[in-house]
Amino acid sequence: MECKSIMSERAKVIIIGGGFGGLSAAEALKSAPVDVTLIDRRNYHLFQPLLYQVATGSLSPGEVAAPIRGILGRQKNTHVLLGDVEDIDPVAKRVLLGDGASFAYDYLIVAAGSQTSYYGHDEWQKWAPGLKSVEEATTLRHKILYAFEVAERIPDPAQRRAWLTFTIVGAGPTGVELAGAIAEISRQTLKHDFRSINPGDAQIILLDASPRVLMAFPEDLAHKAVRSLAKLGVQTRMGAMVHELTKDGISYQADGSTQTLSTKTVIWAGGVTVSPLTRTLAKRTSAETDRGGRIKVGPDLTIANFPDIFVVGDMALSIDKDGKPLQGVAQVAMQGGVYAAKAIVRKIKGKPNPAPFSYFDKGNIAVIGRAAAVANVFGVHLWGLPAWLVWAFIHLMYIVEFQSRVLVFIQWAIQDVTFSRGSRLITGVAPTDFNFNHAVGGQNAAQPAAKKNEQAVA
Amino acid sequence: MECKSIMSERAKVIIIGGGFGGLSAAEALKSAPVDVTLIDRRNYHLFQPLLYQVATGSLSPGEVAAPIRGILGRQKNTHVLLGDVEDIDPVAKRVLLGDGASFAYDYLIVAAGSQTSYYGHDEWQKWAPGLKSVEEATTLRHKILYAFEVAERIPDPAQRRAWLTFTIVGAGPTGVELAGAIAEISRQTLKHDFRSINPGDAQIILLDASPRVLMAFPEDLAHKAVRSLAKLGVQTRMGAMVHELTKDGISYQADGSTQTLSTKTVIWAGGVTVSPLTRTLAKRTSAETDRGGRIKVGPDLTIANFPDIFVVGDMALSIDKDGKPLQGVAQVAMQGGVYAAKAIVRKIKGKPNPAPFSYFDKGNIAVIGRAAAVANVFGVHLWGLPAWLVWAFIHLMYIVEFQSRVLVFIQWAIQDVTFSRGSRLITGVAPTDFNFNHAVGGQNAAQPAAKKNEQAVA
Repeated sequence: MECKSIMSERAKVIIIGGGFGGLSAAEALKSAPVDVTLIDRRNYHLFQPLLYQVATGSLSPGEVAAPIRGILGRQKNTHVLLGDVEDIDPVAKRVLLGDGASFAYDYLIVAAGSQTSYYGHDEWQKWAPGLKSVEEATTLRHKILYAFEVAERIPDPAQRRAWLTFTIVGAGPTGVELAGAIAEISRQTLKHDFRSINPGDAQIILLDASPRVLMAFPEDLAHKAVRSLAKLGVQTRMGAMVHELTKDGISYQADGSTQTLSTKTVIWAGGVTVSPLTRTLAKRTSAETDRGGRIKVGPDLTIANFPDIFVVGDMALSIDKDGKPLQGVAQVAMQGGVYAAKAIVRKIKGKPNPAPFSYFDKGNIAVIGRAAAVANVFGVHLWGLPAWLVWAFIHLMYIVEFQSRVLVFIQWAIQDVTFSRGSRLITGVAPTDFNFNHAVGGQNAAQPAAKKNEQAVA
Repeated sequence: MECKSIMSERAKVIIIGGGFGGLSAAEALKSAPVDVTLIDRRNYHLFQPLLYQVATGSLSPGEVAAPIRGILGRQKNTHVLLGDVEDIDPVAKRVLLGDGASFAYDYLIVAAGSQTSYYGHDEWQKWAPGLKSVEEATTLRHKILYAFEVAERIPDPAQRRAWLTFTIVGAGPTGVELAGAIAEISRQTLKHDFRSINPGDAQIILLDASPRVLMAFPEDLAHKAVRSLAKLGVQTRMGAMVHELTKDGISYQADGSTQTLSTKTVIWAGGVTVSPLTRTLAKRTSAETDRGGRIKVGPDLTIANFPDIFVVGDMALSIDKDGKPLQGVAQVAMQGGVYAAKAIVRKIKGKPNPAPFSYFDKGNIAVIGRAAAVANVFGVHLWGLPAWLVWAFIHLMYIVEFQSRVLVFIQWAIQDVTFSRGSRLITGVAPTDFNFNHAVGGQNAAQPAAKKNEQAVA
């Protein structure tokens, strides 16, 4: 407590969110003459680019997440708070938490990120979880592995096929990575594990309304990706607009006709939207927003008329030199966080405003499977093993801070040799309409199902 | 499917449970001329002795569990089923699942294990989770880490103290290991992580109704354990009988008077009981049971009058040479499983009954902290570093099958050098009466709390 009075003379910076943007900002303020408070609803920073590996049983949640206190613990000017920011008062310059506490700031960096968007169809969430949180990842892992278990037990061929059909909606990097990983699980990891089904019979379908996969990538790499996916057994269906999604499957519009697909496992990698806090902040500051709710920021990443509020990462609508909005990716958030931190230090020191934020795009990368990826690195197009090596290197370097690096690397090495995935646990709960505690198709169907099941076993 | 008809001539062995007993039995039947079906509610085998490390953020669930299909996948005569056994018909020789399916057996090995017992006070479960499942372990992890977060935010000293008081009920190996690990978290792992509290101020209290800790250990080792615990800052209160447990604390009878303790985190390591299936089986076979519900088995581990039903592990009441019942520990279950498997093979081959089951007790071991443990190995009493080395060696060897061995070892090495615990994520939900979304103590209390909070930060 003693140090508090000494600190109170200094400017107070509040950072909302411990993702790539918030954490980069906090670290960039390490030696600045400010008191930093970082507030997050979670006690950990999530390395989201590897989250699909949790969903597909390669890594444990603890290996793609690191406690924020652990990262910033020794940063003396920084205080970490577990809390849910509910409101921001930009005039009184206060942040209000859900539990009633409120904190004053001199400078505010808002980096609250994004969440899965179902474009007005929130009822789809139950049957098609997204992949933005650890909980969603373990729910997906549960769903994917459980589907094979049910298929092993179900005697009806049509039902079995539906349980062995995996549909990923959204063919961006996350969708491509998930599709590739599920294909590898079914073709390799589970090869010897079942007796009544052949896991390799699983259908993996990657759907998107856009005309091709990986729209953010150059076209030649997208074609390469489709070919790699096809080799793994993933079917891609582009130009497909989902208009219904239930526990039994989805129907979508493609080529002017409606198609239906019996599929028990649907994963939503279809899009993101801003958090409720972003909408609140936009209202409070009368900020302009785009259709997705992102807040328009100026070239210095602040909101118009509020030079003390910086918005970085997924929730910011920031325009690059070519007049195009920046993507919601980790790199943009990290560079934005560092920029905001430096701008604050300049303001405190009375220096003139910094040069406008200019995003340095290092490129894009998406993993498809074992030693297969596509990458656009500084404009150089790579695919196959070279792309995969670049991917592995970049990701290992980024998580270098998080102690788990060595472990992840060894885990990958073991996996790439053995194809095994050690973390394929069915834990917690996930919505499913099949419960091993209750008969398939009700009382009457139970007996024949049991008999057929028995034949399959005996 | 083709191989099924070939297999159908052979004796059918059903194993219920993929714990230490069931898995050992299945592995022992690897080359036997039988068709094995192993049924478990979970798709993974849990290495329970290390579960306390998940609860305390050292290891991820995926590192102490391995998919059963992965372990038995290449064992051609074995079929793994995810299912919930609801009933057993010992006359028709059938096992009935919750979903209506039923399977015939020639020989049955029941190894369904045990679950946490609150001795008739199931209402305590909500505020004092046990440590028998992965879900309970992550719930405990949530509770333990969350308590420090709340303490950091709460201004009232008495409340703060209650949130920083951790009580473990039950001073067996699990209780001792949890107490030691929580002490290390508060004294070492979180040392630099908080600003308003000193995590080292946390009180850790180990309670038990029995006269001393580690009743299954020789007395001198129990004393050594208490001394090691005291060095870490753990208080032990023996002869303490809990008679009430709420969200705010517990009250217990000790030395003839009633004591109350304000403690927000209570962990129940107090005892186990059999699963509902054990009660059903006892009823169906009119088997004798003990007070805890364990089924009395003969010297060949079968139920009286049912020479084809073996019961092994925690749910069996098996008497050793000295007339004492065997403990519910992994070793007993493993040896029982192997014995049952061998006995079945003898029966099938028409050989006379095997010699009575005789448990070979290798000893007991309990870890207290970093390089501290007590062990009774083949009658040799060890403590401190030597005991810890024996513990580490035994546990690494046991999980050798599970690929994670290398990882766990490296994780331990990193941790023992750095004291950091990478898996301390607050995920999922855990019952707590403090919610960061709602004011502490209601609407009216919110404002002062907020003000005090702010002082603590500013």
